[in-house]
Amino acid sequence: MPRLEPATASARHTAPPPGLISLADHEAHARSVLDPATWAYINGGAGDGFTLRANRDAWDAVALHPRVLAPLAGLETRTTLLGKACPSPILVAPMARHGLAHPDGELATALAASALGAGFVLGTQSGRPLEEVAKAFAPGGERGPLWFQLYGFGDRDGMRELVARASAAGYEAVMLTVDAPVQGVRDDERRAGFAPPPGLPMPHLPPQAAAGLADLLARAPTWDDVAWLLAHSPLPVLLKGITHPDDARLAVELGVAGLVVSNHGGRVLDTMPATATLLPAVASAVAGRCAVLVDGGVRRGTDIVKAIALGADAVLVGRPILHGLANAGAAGAAHVLRLLGDEFSAAMALCGRRRVADLRDPALVGRPAP
Amino acid sequence: MPRLEPATASARHTAPPPGLISLADHEAHARSVLDPATWAYINGGAGDGFTLRANRDAWDAVALHPRVLAPLAGLETRTTLLGKACPSPILVAPMARHGLAHPDGELATALAASALGAGFVLGTQSGRPLEEVAKAFAPGGERGPLWFQLYGFGDRDGMRELVARASAAGYEAVMLTVDAPVQGVRDDERRAGFAPPPGLPMPHLPPQAAAGLADLLARAPTWDDVAWLLAHSPLPVLLKGITHPDDARLAVELGVAGLVVSNHGGRVLDTMPATATLLPAVASAVAGRCAVLVDGGVRRGTDIVKAIALGADAVLVGRPILHGLANAGAAGAAHVLRLLGDEFSAAMALCGRRRVADLRDPALVGRPAP
Amino acid sequence: MPRLEPATASARHTAPPPGLISLADHEAHARSVLDPATWAYINGGAGDGFTLRANRDAWDAVALHPRVLAPLAGLETRTTLLGKACPSPILVAPMARHGLAHPDGELATALAASALGAGFVLGTQSGRPLEEVAKAFAPGGERGPLWFQLYGFGDRDGMRELVARASAAGYEAVMLTVDAPVQGVRDDERRAGFAPPPGLPMPHLPPQAAAGLADLLARAPTWDDVAWLLAHSPLPVLLKGITHPDDARLAVELGVAGLVVSNHGGRVLDTMPATATLLPAVASAVAGRCAVLVDGGVRRGTDIVKAIALGADAVLVGRPILHGLANAGAAGAAHVLRLLGDEFSAAMALCGRRRVADLRDPALVGRPAP
Amino acid sequence: MPRLEPATASARHTAPPPGLISLADHEAHARSVLDPATWAYINGGAGDGFTLRANRDAWDAVALHPRVLAPLAGLETRTTLLGKACPSPILVAPMARHGLAHPDGELATALAASALGAGFVLGTQSGRPLEEVAKAFAPGGERGPLWFQLYGFGDRDGMRELVARASAAGYEAVMLTVDAPVQGVRDDERRAGFAPPPGLPMPHLPPQAAAGLADLLARAPTWDDVAWLLAHSPLPVLLKGITHPDDARLAVELGVAGLVVSNHGGRVLDTMPATATLLPAVASAVAGRCAVLVDGGVRRGTDIVKAIALGADAVLVGRPILHGLANAGAAGAAHVLRLLGDEFSAAMALCGRRRVADLRDPALVGRPAP
Repeated sequence: MPRLEPATASARHTAPPPGLISLADHEAHARSVLDPATWAYINGGAGDGFTLRANRDAWDAVALHPRVLAPLAGLETRTTLLGKACPSPILVAPMARHGLAHPDGELATALAASALGAGFVLGTQSGRPLEEVAKAFAPGGERGPLWFQLYGFGDRDGMRELVARASAAGYEAVMLTVDAPVQGVRDDERRAGFAPPPGLPMPHLPPQAAAGLADLLARAPTWDDVAWLLAHSPLPVLLKGITHPDDARLAVELGVAGLVVSNHGGRVLDTMPATATLLPAVASAVAGRCAVLVDGGVRRGTDIVKAIALGADAVLVGRPILHGLANAGAAGAAHVLRLLGDEFSAAMALCGRRRVADLRDPALVGRPAP
Repeated sequence: MPRLEPATASARHTAPPPGLISLADHEAHARSVLDPATWAYINGGAGDGFTLRANRDAWDAVALHPRVLAPLAGLETRTTLLGKACPSPILVAPMARHGLAHPDGELATALAASALGAGFVLGTQSGRPLEEVAKAFAPGGERGPLWFQLYGFGDRDGMRELVARASAAGYEAVMLTVDAPVQGVRDDERRAGFAPPPGLPMPHLPPQAAAGLADLLARAPTWDDVAWLLAHSPLPVLLKGITHPDDARLAVELGVAGLVVSNHGGRVLDTMPATATLLPAVASAVAGRCAVLVDGGVRRGTDIVKAIALGADAVLVGRPILHGLANAGAAGAAHVLRLLGDEFSAAMALCGRRRVADLRDPALVGRPAP
Repeated sequence: MPRLEPATASARHTAPPPGLISLADHEAHARSVLDPATWAYINGGAGDGFTLRANRDAWDAVALHPRVLAPLAGLETRTTLLGKACPSPILVAPMARHGLAHPDGELATALAASALGAGFVLGTQSGRPLEEVAKAFAPGGERGPLWFQLYGFGDRDGMRELVARASAAGYEAVMLTVDAPVQGVRDDERRAGFAPPPGLPMPHLPPQAAAGLADLLARAPTWDDVAWLLAHSPLPVLLKGITHPDDARLAVELGVAGLVVSNHGGRVLDTMPATATLLPAVASAVAGRCAVLVDGGVRRGTDIVKAIALGADAVLVGRPILHGLANAGAAGAAHVLRLLGDEFSAAMALCGRRRVADLRDPALVGRPAP
Repeated sequence: MPRLEPATASARHTAPPPGLISLADHEAHARSVLDPATWAYINGGAGDGFTLRANRDAWDAVALHPRVLAPLAGLETRTTLLGKACPSPILVAPMARHGLAHPDGELATALAASALGAGFVLGTQSGRPLEEVAKAFAPGGERGPLWFQLYGFGDRDGMRELVARASAAGYEAVMLTVDAPVQGVRDDERRAGFAPPPGLPMPHLPPQAAAGLADLLARAPTWDDVAWLLAHSPLPVLLKGITHPDDARLAVELGVAGLVVSNHGGRVLDTMPATATLLPAVASAVAGRCAVLVDGGVRRGTDIVKAIALGADAVLVGRPILHGLANAGAAGAAHVLRLLGDEFSAAMALCGRRRVADLRDPALVGRPAP
């Protein structure tokens, strides 16, 4: 395990503050810890925040229809993802700059995810080199999956090199984000005047001048780029940001290993539907031909039950991890993952299901069988 | 009638405080009387409280479609339950630890229910021995039904003995709670730091060490346990916490005497639908083959009218009884039951119905006949 | 015109206070003028006020689908009711005790309605003898209809005598209220401790001791009583409080001259649907065989347009008249009627309709033709 | 370019105040700059404001269903309107009295629209002569369309003369407003006591005495007047305020060049549906036979995407332009148009569409193809 950097003020916490018993509590506490501009960057959404709120509300609006009196002894949360056994269907979503939340940054996240049996998708915009993060996570064995996220597509040589580095470091898949050819209209962030702190390194990105709209559009990935990546990547490829069933079908036909139903946490195109709303049609279009993950607003163990009943194989959790980091570094992120995992186990029991596979049942959320 | 214990401060009230004219008033007053942690324990719900609020909102959302100019002279609320005539279709729901609300605890509740013609389902987690409570209730004659609730299923010998005690003491049925194999994620209660006061006895439960999830799951009742109970109980058996029509059919086929459509007052699995929403499909699956009761959010006489129109034979009322107890002991609980009964009579008249049987009419709530 | 009683403090106003430009303004001002208990009596609803609010919300929720470029010159609001031409389809609803709002009581209301071309339904619980009120209204000619409301049915001789008095005094119809066999659960009023002031006379009611539920139910009118009234009344009979299409059919078959779709302003059975919601099915059941009026929440000229498009021949306006009375006596009630009439004319023009008969068009509220 | 009048206090701003990053920010700032009565006049709605709010809410409620990974290089917002190429599908809506917002009035608006490639529909109630405004706009070339709005129809000779002046000055079409035969019940404005400042000229209107309802109705335009205008106008004619598909069909059959789906910004008949709700049926009735524009609540680039997907060719933007004017004169109006244009480009990219024509796709807003 790598040695962490010297502790800063916020890093002194070695345990989460007392009284945090839900992810909402972590969020409220993190808001009090972080400066307003960083908070706006981490928690803000695009436009007027409709999609940001809809993500959360849509999980709440899915009703659970449990069964009773089923045998529950030996209940467990294990599952399989891209052919690999995992302790749970929970992964940390790819996010930029964990260092904004805590000086240990992505290393702390890796430790937390690894310890709690969650998967981890390291973002291209990580402040720590992917090799260091992989060492902290120590992939394999009883751990969840370790994947690397790719962004943009300006430079195929650079991308090929980055994928090779990830593969060499032990990453098990790459995940290309496809829903953000340009940045969203992020009003909260702009109003708060957020700017990345100058000292924060971005070891996987070439130094870039600010790009205009035309440059960004020219550099945005296309289906041709996906085909190229599938042809050249030594690792399985997932696409993140697929919400239309027709795009899901195209992705499956090109041979992707999985896709993430995501609206970028409501940070890109406001008034897109919630991911819980979009998931069933995408899962139905995929029809089991690749893995389906979902993110956006997952905050409760019951949300994970619902995601699986609606067709997902696993969920990605984003902002809550940064909240945990802000509150107590690796211990805070681990606490977030533990709360979520405990809630998930309890929800399985209260739904009368002993295995993750038993959750793949539309009737559990009051829908007819497909 | 048993002699009650020496009065404590809150027991000094011999009549409900002036100005309480609805169950909502009792609730608001009880909140001012009880300490916040006890309040959170009594009134809190699981998770974010969606099901807790939905229970209440769903009754409000059922529209009444009354008829006018029908003869109303001689209107009465009598009905029949498990073959026995009862003064009204109102029962007190099984709840733990009435002593938290008032030192007279379950004895006060028994007196109130008995005097007002309501039924009473004593909880396993009663602070008073079931025999004392039965004496206070004095079942039979013009009184409502007296039933005993069972919980968990770790020890069949213990359960058999408990059922025998209840039968010997005059209880007329047992009701097994089936919807809580593990405790819900009760955030309000955890945030408020509730812990049962050390002095409160639990005479029907063996002393237990804190149990982990695996222990709880191994001990959770199954359909096999229900079959065993039906085979060994000298009393009719009802199941509480049936919400799925398929579970209702299984229960009827095993021979239960009745079932309660309940989501545990929103205290167990958040985002389950409201019981008013779940009731019609369960009643339709049962098709008159056993009794159907419902609980969750019943606070108005019109709610009882709606419950019967949607297929219930009777309703259980929970938290409002504890509010009444907290406000004025037995007199407070009796006042709650009187307010509810008076509203129920008035609602029958305003709907143009002179008999409880006339309320079994889907058209009264704007639904087509089944 | 009768001489009004000596002015009291509130009677000094001879014009409405400045700045009141809508019925909502009158309501807000009246609230500041009346004591809280009287306010609760006048404005309160039954139970939790769902029906009270729904009445208002339902008019707002009906969308208008206007036509443009139709000729509008010569637009007018005249219509016909029970075969008589009226200046407008607006009537004052029967209400008890106008004297609570202003010492001139029903005399002031009669003056206002008469002057503005509105109809007036005097309540049985008027504080002024019906003969005096009729003189103040001076029925006939260019005035709206003058009707008398009947309540309860304990004494057929008394009722026959009352109808004969009304007929002799110039009333043109009687309206029997059928939706209140018992009083609603009026929590607001009970909480505010309202009691009718002792000095207020009730010249049309025999002095009565407080009656219990059984007495009230025995005295409640039935279909037999309606048949008796139709056989013995020299005046046309309307029923007020019909909301079920089957009751409407029964009423039509018995030969009533009209009926009022009413939930008693939300004062009787809470959670009944809004009258705007109930109106179309009743109008469809009546199919033009008698007059159909509606009350409950009419506060805007557009509401009147909607009521007619949904099947009504006219609307009754209740509480706003008492608000106007409270604010400035007869001048206040007249101001309320003028505001409503002006809004109605403007709404007709903006909907592209020159005649009241042109408003009888379901397409105007986005519904298919029947 | 015409020389602007001497600057007043508010005209000193030559750039929008810092921190305004959305049209909502401009609105909030304008509210702090304008006096309350002017604010009520500019921003108020009819009645209770249901339609005013619905206009905004309806755009928010239309969900976007984007596609990903399409090529986006060379994205552009050009389109065609009445056969003329325009830089964007954004026009400034006809509004009275821009001088209330800024002393430069319509000249400032013309400069802003011209500079940003937006179209401009000058209102009849402009404070500046149409010829001066046309010079400021300098129509033709790379500019958007310049049209002139007509109101009322009392005097055909006057109208013919006005249209001839507009044509001579370079206006490319006239737009007749047809949805306001009388003024709406504008409560906000009446409560705030708004009166047009005496010094404000109205160079296109004859001096008029206050007119009563009957006069207004006699003067309201009819279909005959539209036919006359089509026969006598040298310019193409559009109708503004068409919301009913049957009126749209009549307009098309008479030969109009285009129509605007508009409820007059919620200022005329309250409880009309939102224009986003009305647009699809009108567009479907028109079936491409004339141009379809829409206004009401357009505040975000995504709203423009939605309008086109729902069947519009272009959008009109009203109040935000006055907000920009109030905040910084021509620079403020230009800033509003720039923010909206930038959001529109970003929204196109995030929806995966490179051309305005690609937005004409019902699937983009989750609707089936017509």
